[in-house]
Amino acid sequence: MARLVLKFGGTSVGDVDRIKAAAQRVKRIRDAGNSVAVVVSAMSGATNQLDKWVRDTARIHDPREYDVVASTGEQVTIGLLAIALQDIGVPARSWMGWQIPVRTNDAHASARILDIRGDTLLRHMEQGEVPVIAGFQGVTQAGRVTTLGRGGSDTTAVAIAAAIKADRCDIYTDVDGVYTTDPRIVAKARKLDKITYEEMLEMASLGAKVLQTRSVEMAMNHRVRVQVLSSFNDAPGTLVVDEDEIVEKEIVSGIAYSRDEAKITLRKVPDRPGVAATVFGKLAEADINVDMIVQNTSQDSTYTDITFTVKRTDSDRALMVLQSVKSAVGFAELDSDPRVAKVSVIGVGMRSHAGVAQRMFAALGSRGINIQVISTSEIKVSVLIDEEYTELALRSLHSAYGLDAA
Amino acid sequence: MARLVLKFGGTSVGDVDRIKAAAQRVKRIRDAGNSVAVVVSAMSGATNQLDKWVRDTARIHDPREYDVVASTGEQVTIGLLAIALQDIGVPARSWMGWQIPVRTNDAHASARILDIRGDTLLRHMEQGEVPVIAGFQGVTQAGRVTTLGRGGSDTTAVAIAAAIKADRCDIYTDVDGVYTTDPRIVAKARKLDKITYEEMLEMASLGAKVLQTRSVEMAMNHRVRVQVLSSFNDAPGTLVVDEDEIVEKEIVSGIAYSRDEAKITLRKVPDRPGVAATVFGKLAEADINVDMIVQNTSQDSTYTDITFTVKRTDSDRALMVLQSVKSAVGFAELDSDPRVAKVSVIGVGMRSHAGVAQRMFAALGSRGINIQVISTSEIKVSVLIDEEYTELALRSLHSAYGLDAA
Repeated sequence: MARLVLKFGGTSVGDVDRIKAAAQRVKRIRDAGNSVAVVVSAMSGATNQLDKWVRDTARIHDPREYDVVASTGEQVTIGLLAIALQDIGVPARSWMGWQIPVRTNDAHASARILDIRGDTLLRHMEQGEVPVIAGFQGVTQAGRVTTLGRGGSDTTAVAIAAAIKADRCDIYTDVDGVYTTDPRIVAKARKLDKITYEEMLEMASLGAKVLQTRSVEMAMNHRVRVQVLSSFNDAPGTLVVDEDEIVEKEIVSGIAYSRDEAKITLRKVPDRPGVAATVFGKLAEADINVDMIVQNTSQDSTYTDITFTVKRTDSDRALMVLQSVKSAVGFAELDSDPRVAKVSVIGVGMRSHAGVAQRMFAALGSRGINIQVISTSEIKVSVLIDEEYTELALRSLHSAYGLDAA
Repeated sequence: MARLVLKFGGTSVGDVDRIKAAAQRVKRIRDAGNSVAVVVSAMSGATNQLDKWVRDTARIHDPREYDVVASTGEQVTIGLLAIALQDIGVPARSWMGWQIPVRTNDAHASARILDIRGDTLLRHMEQGEVPVIAGFQGVTQAGRVTTLGRGGSDTTAVAIAAAIKADRCDIYTDVDGVYTTDPRIVAKARKLDKITYEEMLEMASLGAKVLQTRSVEMAMNHRVRVQVLSSFNDAPGTLVVDEDEIVEKEIVSGIAYSRDEAKITLRKVPDRPGVAATVFGKLAEADINVDMIVQNTSQDSTYTDITFTVKRTDSDRALMVLQSVKSAVGFAELDSDPRVAKVSVIGVGMRSHAGVAQRMFAALGSRGINIQVISTSEIKVSVLIDEEYTELALRSLHSAYGLDAA
């Protein structure tokens, strides 16, 4: 007998039949003796329709009113799922963010959860009722509805799990777990039984779209055990847990990649103090996120080259910003290359094992893959390569770190 | 400078373009120096889609959860209209029922408004802001969302007008006012400049679908001046007001009709006390509304005939109920006829003028139209006729009471 939060994403509640299937799953888990709360997303496609109506009304619009419209998607699903549960004999009631309440700050359209009252939900659960909670939405102190940004329902689920001290938060989705790498590219990719919060966080922010980054942060901060699993079968998924729970740690747990990058190079930049501050200050002002940065030491100490990556969609805007500071910075040339990919190896085992990066460089080098930029953190090494080599790089690294399925 | 509530129905906010047109109208009225609050329905078709999803999930369902789903339709419209208003420079914000709050009883799916706080809305209006309020929805004392039943947005608009002591409540719809009779049938029908609450109430409950009955009751009880007008042109509409405001009263203001009736006759019923109580008691238990009732005096005081009308959709169920009490009541035959229409003449002038009913019977008689059942109230006379004569009856009566347009 465990206390569980079950979260169903958009495809898992995509139409009335899927909603009824989700209800059956909730019933099975509850009949097995568990106490259950459910968090749901909008029916797949619903949020896109609502977004379109808002954009068609006014391209630039009040995010407070956007939230009023966008939050209706989840409201529809909770009503329908509560009805489907009642229809098969499971006591259930729907809960909107403002009814619980799920308090957020007032950063509308990308609000952060401040606090969730768990006592009311727990009282209802103790009476055998299944709370069906709208993901993605909350309410400000002033009583206005907020949304948490795309993928926010994962964050709601983890936050609810923390608030009611659940034993686990099960995220039902259209994939059956977290893989060592993208199984569509590497046939020998393996589903992981367990992964640490830190690794999952790196995987999520490096392009693996299984869980929203913020939900992993919240799970880590509140030590909520999360399971990612498929709503289309009954196979066990991947547990995202604390490092202590994993006895046999792999040195490298997974290999992530992203094709959303563009590389920008400033050539022949005068090598004097303050230049980097000017360049990256202007980009920050324009709300452009810079990821990997490399500055080569110049041979004669007069000029240097600066290379960095931005999101591919920000690339044109970044070039415009840089042209506008050309005279102030005094660089000679400005190059950009969108045909790059970032490939990262991730594993908490790196902390205690030397030579992880070296093995990566060797594996790529042996295949003739040139490394353009390198960046490292405590538990990951990322390299920028020509995007044409992405698949080859993934397969090579997957083998090099012994991750291939038998 | 007046304080106005403007209500836009489903077709008036049917898509993004219509919503923008509604916003332009609000702006014009506000620019003319008025202080304005807006009440809106769901985009036309939206409520039907939500209803269908609920029914597909479970034909018999918790009305509390139905309300959670159904109330999203209006929530979408308030967000979009607030955005459209802001986009053309009109300060606006959306209000859901629970935010105001619009307190209702807990008769979910057909709740009644108990109380509306007007002070918060007024404070926002005094700062020049246009409140955009979701019609059709409210909240119970326990904090659950309710809906008011079909057409409930009219009721919301009138209740908001009462709460903020508005000078008038303008109901924008797809017709341009209240007519002396259905202009699709009688070419000479005239738009009325004014009509009394009592007459409007009879018109609404007798089949004229311009305003929801409950909204008229509420307007009458709170003496809210209501105007019905078109959102597709700028013509003045029809004012629904207190009798005192109408100087030149017509004897008859309008002629309504309904084809939703079915006539049921019990023949050779033993003429003894308690028979009517048994018959109509059983129908009431089955939640079947009985409208016109006639019991003919029997010639030999042993048997009588009882004739009454029910809604056509209730007709089969009524016959089943009556068959089940056949032995207890002891009638000989049970007849039903769905091919009937109810035609009514309505006017507060009847109170002070004799001969109104007589003129009706004469006009119908001269055209050879047989009257099957008669029922009267202080300000209306209704007759049941063969439905084939509906159009002829309407045209004859329209002329007979001098209502024809010049």
